Amino acid sequence: MRRTQADIDLLFETLLPDPDDARRRLYRAMRHAAVGGGKRLRPLLVEACAGLFDVPRSSALRAGLAVECIHVHSLIHDDLPCMDDDDLRHGKPTVHRAYDEATAVLAGDALLAFGFEILSDPATHPSAEIRCELVRELAAAAGAGGMAGGQMLDLLASGGMPDLDSISRLQRLKTGALIGWCLEAGAIMGAAPAELRTGLRGYAQCLGLAFQIADDLLDNQGDEAKAGKRLRKDEDQGKATFVSLLGAERARRQADMLVEQAIAHLHAFGERSRLLREIVEFAVRRDR
Amino acid sequence: MRRTQADIDLLFETLLPDPDDARRRLYRAMRHAAVGGGKRLRPLLVEACAGLFDVPRSSALRAGLAVECIHVHSLIHDDLPCMDDDDLRHGKPTVHRAYDEATAVLAGDALLAFGFEILSDPATHPSAEIRCELVRELAAAAGAGGMAGGQMLDLLASGGMPDLDSISRLQRLKTGALIGWCLEAGAIMGAAPAELRTGLRGYAQCLGLAFQIADDLLDNQGDEAKAGKRLRKDEDQGKATFVSLLGAERARRQADMLVEQAIAHLHAFGERSRLLREIVEFAVRRDR
Repeated sequence: MRRTQADIDLLFETLLPDPDDARRRLYRAMRHAAVGGGKRLRPLLVEACAGLFDVPRSSALRAGLAVECIHVHSLIHDDLPCMDDDDLRHGKPTVHRAYDEATAVLAGDALLAFGFEILSDPATHPSAEIRCELVRELAAAAGAGGMAGGQMLDLLASGGMPDLDSISRLQRLKTGALIGWCLEAGAIMGAAPAELRTGLRGYAQCLGLAFQIADDLLDNQGDEAKAGKRLRKDEDQGKATFVSLLGAERARRQADMLVEQAIAHLHAFGERSRLLREIVEFAVRRDR
Repeated sequence: MRRTQADIDLLFETLLPDPDDARRRLYRAMRHAAVGGGKRLRPLLVEACAGLFDVPRSSALRAGLAVECIHVHSLIHDDLPCMDDDDLRHGKPTVHRAYDEATAVLAGDALLAFGFEILSDPATHPSAEIRCELVRELAAAAGAGGMAGGQMLDLLASGGMPDLDSISRLQRLKTGALIGWCLEAGAIMGAAPAELRTGLRGYAQCLGLAFQIADDLLDNQGDEAKAGKRLRKDEDQGKATFVSLLGAERARRQADMLVEQAIAHLHAFGERSRLLREIVEFAVRRDR
C-alpha cells in the first residue's frame, strides 16, 4: 500500500510539472489536491485485480492514476461552498480555501480531463481496444449515470428522510461506480473470462458498501485530527447515514458481514486473491 | 448549419433521457445547457473537415457531439458566480440560475465525462486506435494544458494590463485548443497525410483568433437581446480585449486579414474546402 501511495504521488508530481506561465497556479492547485494524504484505495484495487491476471504493474499503475484523477476531481468539487462546503481535506485546507473557488472548479475540471488523457495514452496499455474500453467504462462510471448522478442524489437527500434502500442506491452510484471500475479495469486489461468477472463485480459491490458503512462509522465516532477533515456533518445536517438508520452496533455487524461476502466472491481465485482480501479488511477496519 | 444544429439537439435529447429517479434533475440541467441556442460551430467544423476525407457523417457527428459536450461543460462552469457570474446564456437563464450552483457544477462535470463516453464508444468510429487518439487529443485540449489552462489565465488577467501577445496566447488556449481539435479530429478520422494536417492547423489557428476578435467586437458593439447574454462585461471589469487594445477599426481589419489567411491555408483542398471557407467567413461576420 505504501509503495502504491509513493508511486502515485511521484506520477502526479512528474506528470503535472509547473508550466512557465501563469497557468502554474492551476497546476499547483491540482497537485495540492492530488499529492499526499490519500489512501489510494482505488489504484490499489486496480493493482490487486490486475495482479490476478498477470497484467504488467506499469499498466495497472497508470490505470490507477487515471481513476485517482477522477476521484480527486470529485473531492475538490464536493468540498466547494455550494456543495459540502468543507475547509479541510487530508489535514490540509481544501483547494478553494488554499486558492479560491474559481481555481478549485478549474482544478477539478482539469483533473477529470487528465484522467482520460492518462488512460488513453499508449503508455497505459499497448492495445487501443483495451484503452478505449477503459475510457468508456470510466467515463460512464464518473458521469450522470454513475458518480455525478450519485452526488446529485446525495444533494437532494438532505431534505427528506431516506430509507436504507435509497441510501444503498445512492452510495452504489456515488462511491460504488468508481470502485466497480477498478475491478473491471483489472479484468479488462487481463482479458478475464465472464465467470470470473461476475465474482469481481460481487466483490466490488460488497466492498463499496462496506467501505461506505465504515466511513459513516468513522464519521460518527472518529477523531477529526486523525481523519484530517470535519466529521459529523451529515448528522448536523440531519442527513441519514447507515449509522443513523441502523445504529452503530448493527452498522458494524453489517460491514463485517459484507467483508465476509466480498471475500466469498473471491473463492475462484484461491490464494492469489490475498491482496484483494486484505484490502476489503483494511477498508472496514481503517481508522481514517 | 441548421441540419447540424438539429442533429446535435436531437442527439442530446436522445442520449440524455430522464432516468426514473431523482437524478432526473441532473439530466434536465444538462439538457437545459446543451439543447438549443448554440451555433454548433465546433460540430460543424468537425463535419466540414471530416468531409474533406470522405469520413462517414455519422462518425463526424458523434465526434462533433463529443466536443460540444466539452464546450457546453466549459460554458456552464464559466457562468458560475465564482467565475464570470452570468445570469443569461443563449437567451435563457444559466444553469446555476435555472437550478442551483451545485447542480451546475455537477452538470458541467457530467457533460465533460459524457463527451469522453461518446467519443470512446465503437459507434463513433470502427477503429479503436482512432477513437483512442481522438480521446487523448480532446482530453489534452480540454485540460490544464489547453482550455482549462486558458481559463486560468483569463481569470488572472483581470488584474494586470496584458498586451496583444498575452491575449492571443490566452485565447489560443481558451478557445483555440478545442477549435484546433475539431480540425485534428477530421484529419485523424480521415487518416490525412502530414502535409495536409499542417494546412488544417494553420486554418484552425487563424479561425480561432478571428472568431475571438469577432466575439470581442460583438461584445463591444453588439445587441444584448440578439446575443442572448450580458455584453460589455470585460470592458466594465477593465479586462483587456482585442478591441480595447487595437480599437474597433483595426480589430475588424485584423479579423478580415485572418479570414484571408485561414482560407489561404486551405489551398491544397481546392473546391472541396468550400464549407470550411464559409465557416470562417460566418465566424467573423455573424451577429451573435
